[in-house]
Amino acid sequence: MFFEGAEKKAEIQTDLKQISLLNDLPDSFWKTLVSCCKAQVLSTISNPQCKAFLLSESSLFVWDDRLLILTCGETQLVNSIEYFIQQVGTKKIKQLTYQRKNEYFAHAQPSCFGDDMKQLSPYIKGCAYRFGELDGHHNYLFHYENDFTALPDDKTYEFLAYQISETASELLTSSNISAEKIREFLSIDSLLPDYVIDDFVFKPYGYSLNAIKEDRYLTIHVTPQAGSSYISFESNIDLIVVAPLFIDILKPLSFDILSFNEHEFSQKTLPFKEANYVSKSLVEKTLPNGYHVNFANFILPQLQFTQPTQLSVEGENHAL
Amino acid sequence: MFFEGAEKKAEIQTDLKQISLLNDLPDSFWKTLVSCCKAQVLSTISNPQCKAFLLSESSLFVWDDRLLILTCGETQLVNSIEYFIQQVGTKKIKQLTYQRKNEYFAHAQPSCFGDDMKQLSPYIKGCAYRFGELDGHHNYLFHYENDFTALPDDKTYEFLAYQISETASELLTSSNISAEKIREFLSIDSLLPDYVIDDFVFKPYGYSLNAIKEDRYLTIHVTPQAGSSYISFESNIDLIVVAPLFIDILKPLSFDILSFNEHEFSQKTLPFKEANYVSKSLVEKTLPNGYHVNFANFILPQLQFTQPTQLSVEGENHAL
Repeated sequence: MFFEGAEKKAEIQTDLKQISLLNDLPDSFWKTLVSCCKAQVLSTISNPQCKAFLLSESSLFVWDDRLLILTCGETQLVNSIEYFIQQVGTKKIKQLTYQRKNEYFAHAQPSCFGDDMKQLSPYIKGCAYRFGELDGHHNYLFHYENDFTALPDDKTYEFLAYQISETASELLTSSNISAEKIREFLSIDSLLPDYVIDDFVFKPYGYSLNAIKEDRYLTIHVTPQAGSSYISFESNIDLIVVAPLFIDILKPLSFDILSFNEHEFSQKTLPFKEANYVSKSLVEKTLPNGYHVNFANFILPQLQFTQPTQLSVEGENHAL
Repeated sequence: MFFEGAEKKAEIQTDLKQISLLNDLPDSFWKTLVSCCKAQVLSTISNPQCKAFLLSESSLFVWDDRLLILTCGETQLVNSIEYFIQQVGTKKIKQLTYQRKNEYFAHAQPSCFGDDMKQLSPYIKGCAYRFGELDGHHNYLFHYENDFTALPDDKTYEFLAYQISETASELLTSSNISAEKIREFLSIDSLLPDYVIDDFVFKPYGYSLNAIKEDRYLTIHVTPQAGSSYISFESNIDLIVVAPLFIDILKPLSFDILSFNEHEFSQKTLPFKEANYVSKSLVEKTLPNGYHVNFANFILPQLQFTQPTQLSVEGENHAL
């Protein structure tokens, strides 16, 4: 069974003088917003600074003046963003970033990034970039181009692992594996001892986790099946520093790091080279909205031949 | 302007006791076959052993007992194959291989590999494989599973170059460049001094070449534009031996080698490692039809950051 793990992601920052996302919008608003892209809220955790919704397909985080939503599978996240803009109005929106990474099965998606930008264009004028080459891992990023400038300490990180080891894949696809066992495997409890954690194991497999502490968050989404394995980590804690631990656990043949406002990217990623990974792609730019974005794809050079994947001739198209 | 250079490819071997593809089928048959996938014949060259058609989107080669067709863009090659099967009948077909590499813009294709296999399944029972990982360059390959066994000296090669140097891209996209100039740049005339050559420069850019000598062939298809550059070489002469020359000319950041029945693949590809390329993917298998297939993707590790590609917000979806 194949599943499109690749996420679409949107981050919206709002004007706290005009609206408090936590106080002025009821849970029913977020449920409707999420339903616009055909996802559902599975559970919710919160603290005074942040509310985190675990979704049927990924996660939504809401702070007083910011929201972050990631959805995967065949969801049309852009519909949720359009709903937010229509309900809240662009005047209250200080910044909007809409991001899509390249999918495994682009042909199975209801829209492409260009379609999504066209859908947003009546509301938001912006600019768009592709980080990474067309023939490899890449991320499309669109943002509202206005007088907004990001604060230098507003840092976020993505660590995306592909082709995890057979051992990791087998464990994470084992039947009836518990959330506790997956957290233990990923060292979550020791890594985030004082975070409030909400997680869910999907059937037949798949795992999502939201963790929050004050205004800090980490979200993990696991598509563990061999052949199309993909595990995403997204956080405002420094994932470049934590990545070697996850690399050691998952032994991915390839991974991406995407960071916003991390100015020591080159220096911090040196340990990956020591672990024999090489950079297939290295891209950076300070965007017009002030965010300094770095994108890198690392791969582990192969020395041994492997067998091809045999496909079911009568199989799902998505596998192809 | 973006163009999908990635080819679909089919090779059909027929029973010479029952049909001679060169003698029994008129040119009008091939024109109709090619029109089934919305391509057109631009020109033709031939010798007693082989007829080569240069197409509006790639190439068709016909021998007495074999045909090879490659088409790119948004062509549906499978329609041409279905036409061939319907007209000639499966009893005269000894072997059929249908191949598709991963596209840049899979969402813009009218079908995916799975759809194509379903279309062929009423006629041909076969098996299918994916050579290469889903998150990187990969080739889908389907073949007729019967009592056919390939001859050991039936060797073919593909060399596929991606992200060619800025210099190469600029030259190949320069306005009014002649076919002669492109042949000179690619060293074709010195490499194949006694081949009959047929080539065409497309507007605004793009280049195709067919070269034949006795039963030998080489076909080259050039999608030169920066950002989505892709140059494919396909031949029954040994392209692994020739590749270092093309690598030196094109300086691609990434390339694939796919070979059928080349048993010294590892040894022959050693020069690529000496040129600082590393293997991202190495796959091999002897297929049920007797062909020993090797697939490798090589990349040049990056040491310097590059800028992202800025996209037109009102641009074509295909660019995204």
